[in-house]
Amino acid sequence: MDEFAKTSRRAFLRGSAAVAAGTVAGHAAAQGAPDPAITELQDWASYLGVGVDETPYGLPIKFETDVVRRSVPWLTASPISSINFTPIHALEGTITPQGCAFERHHSGAIELSKDDYRLMINGLVDRPLVFTYADLERLPRENHVYFCECAANTGMEWAGAQLNGAQFTHGMIHNMEYTGVPLRTLLAEAGLDAAGDFADKWVYVEGADASSNGRSIPMEKALDDVLVAFKANGEALRMEHGYPVRLVVPGWEGNMWIKWIRRIEVTDAAVESREETSKYTDLHEDGVARKWTWVMDAKSIITSPSPQMPITHGTGPLVVSGLAWSGHGKITRVDVSIDGGITWETARLGKQGDTKALTRFYYDMDWDGREMLMQARAMDDTGYVQPTKDQLREMRGENSVYHNNCIQTWFVNEEGVAENVEVS
Amino acid sequence: MDEFAKTSRRAFLRGSAAVAAGTVAGHAAAQGAPDPAITELQDWASYLGVGVDETPYGLPIKFETDVVRRSVPWLTASPISSINFTPIHALEGTITPQGCAFERHHSGAIELSKDDYRLMINGLVDRPLVFTYADLERLPRENHVYFCECAANTGMEWAGAQLNGAQFTHGMIHNMEYTGVPLRTLLAEAGLDAAGDFADKWVYVEGADASSNGRSIPMEKALDDVLVAFKANGEALRMEHGYPVRLVVPGWEGNMWIKWIRRIEVTDAAVESREETSKYTDLHEDGVARKWTWVMDAKSIITSPSPQMPITHGTGPLVVSGLAWSGHGKITRVDVSIDGGITWETARLGKQGDTKALTRFYYDMDWDGREMLMQARAMDDTGYVQPTKDQLREMRGENSVYHNNCIQTWFVNEEGVAENVEVS
Repeated sequence: MDEFAKTSRRAFLRGSAAVAAGTVAGHAAAQGAPDPAITELQDWASYLGVGVDETPYGLPIKFETDVVRRSVPWLTASPISSINFTPIHALEGTITPQGCAFERHHSGAIELSKDDYRLMINGLVDRPLVFTYADLERLPRENHVYFCECAANTGMEWAGAQLNGAQFTHGMIHNMEYTGVPLRTLLAEAGLDAAGDFADKWVYVEGADASSNGRSIPMEKALDDVLVAFKANGEALRMEHGYPVRLVVPGWEGNMWIKWIRRIEVTDAAVESREETSKYTDLHEDGVARKWTWVMDAKSIITSPSPQMPITHGTGPLVVSGLAWSGHGKITRVDVSIDGGITWETARLGKQGDTKALTRFYYDMDWDGREMLMQARAMDDTGYVQPTKDQLREMRGENSVYHNNCIQTWFVNEEGVAENVEVS
Repeated sequence: MDEFAKTSRRAFLRGSAAVAAGTVAGHAAAQGAPDPAITELQDWASYLGVGVDETPYGLPIKFETDVVRRSVPWLTASPISSINFTPIHALEGTITPQGCAFERHHSGAIELSKDDYRLMINGLVDRPLVFTYADLERLPRENHVYFCECAANTGMEWAGAQLNGAQFTHGMIHNMEYTGVPLRTLLAEAGLDAAGDFADKWVYVEGADASSNGRSIPMEKALDDVLVAFKANGEALRMEHGYPVRLVVPGWEGNMWIKWIRRIEVTDAAVESREETSKYTDLHEDGVARKWTWVMDAKSIITSPSPQMPITHGTGPLVVSGLAWSGHGKITRVDVSIDGGITWETARLGKQGDTKALTRFYYDMDWDGREMLMQARAMDDTGYVQPTKDQLREMRGENSVYHNNCIQTWFVNEEGVAENVEVS
């Protein structure tokens, strides 16, 4: 902690009289000069600030205007059918505020009021039903924190290190506390006997927007932990996240989390819609497609330091902060390497994560100013270990776009500047 | 569930061909007429929506503009030294979004940048220190969800039922995931030997705004779970919540959660500042003041139905939703009464709450349309049971403003309209 002491353990005059008067006399030992931020009366201590009537709904302070969703211009031609990225490099903890949680649209975000909202359950059920929003509010509800990750997250990195920032390589993810009605409750209302003939059936779920984004979900998952959700982080879903109602499919790829959900059809077999055949499937090296790649495997990313978050304070104590998650369950361990995967140290988990939710990890180190190749690898409660990029390519080739959960490497130079690189 | 069936179990034509074409033919059995929201092609399914580049930082949809903080005009003369209320009646789950989390200011919210920020530790320490914001970022950090409740929450209700809405009677509370450095880490840096002579010492904590809001905290608490926090719900604190750094004092009254914290002085005794003598203390009936009433005792509130959230769907299934919390630890049980406390049923906890954090509870009932006197009572893991208003008055008289954690009663009439009342 010597270097840290140099910058922060500043000696200053012990002046309790001055302190009691509301001013402090101090000087920074390192610089040998008084710090006017301590010794002088500050503007904000001299005048009245902003009152409680100014902002009924508050926004981030003006100093934080760079903590926003961003898109990558070359990634898609139209912003209506595109994606933006959560600024995970600048966030902490595990909850993602709705305002900066990534969006993915196939035909743009729509404005659908609660009064206009309808949810139909049809197909192989005893009683086809239509639920209004008010109907959904009358059924027993639950709360759970879950991550939602786009299957294409990190998808631009298959062929090589490409996007220079955690926001862009890993920002197609958010993590919120959802409130909703279990899908199994709605299916029971419609007369689905879960213990009976329905075990091998499917549900086809469909959105109300122009893209009619539709996906097939096997009944086992539908009756397990899927939620028909209407709140996120306590308040109504945002327009861009499916207001007033979206599907939450814990641990499974974001494309299945149907927004503005309008229909749930119980079917004999998967529909094999566009979004689960020509899209959201991957080709192996030999051209054979992987089928039903629903679960998001364990993954992790160091969010700071990272290309958008260089080390600016020099050598000494450094908090390495990152996120880990698994669609199979809980994160049990995260390791960190600063030498490109040759040696590993076990990171500290910020708080035991919920199942299928983001877990924050920390590695508190002392940086000697040398170059680093920083990596993190996640493990979940199934025993799965996050693979290297080479291991993933060996298994899957390079024809994939989706489900790239490889270990990411940041090169950090002697100035603390970080860059997206590959090691092998 | 018969009444529910009448309104939501609508029969409709089973037209799988029509469904496959993207339109559904349905009619509401109850009304006997087709529902155009189902049978007709909707605008939002016909046109493209809003793209991902429109809102780098998103806000609630236009239909939710009533879910905002509100103040009570008669409560204080100036909005600069006042309070507003979280719209808890309209929120769900447990997390409070920063944008609608209540504010309390003594001299207005100030704009203090990270570069201008300093935190001094002085007094009875080996090494007086000044930390910059960047210094704080270099120390090991933690994440915890905690509620913050103003000591005056429900304070206007001592003399009788007064404010007609959960937002106003109980909305001086929010619940966020904080990221910060334990105060004990900073004190250790300053050379405080926790195991030694310091056990009976205090810290005096002080804000950088014009009010210099200052409070004394006994060392035992300071070394326990107090955080020097810089993030809430993943992102930077909002200006109105103390950007860039505030104190988090889990389970203790909000006034001690010093915003824009600039100084921590280790002292021999409590300072007995204005905010802990003439304010934030209560007089007993005999005029003697209660001293050191720091902990927020167990409390609960039914958020829906409530005066701002009437029952609009008639009789049948009704989700009663509410919040419970305890500054002493975890909520273990919540009971709900619909007859003014004569009989009680145990509510369902939405998710096991964290310690010193909000817990959501639900009571799923079938409303027969009769008048109700709705109450909730919370119990925590110390065995404490939330008292009635009469019990609280018997103990404390009516000279108090702060620490009113009595059981709240909503009268619900046959039309489902709710009102703030008292029963005895």
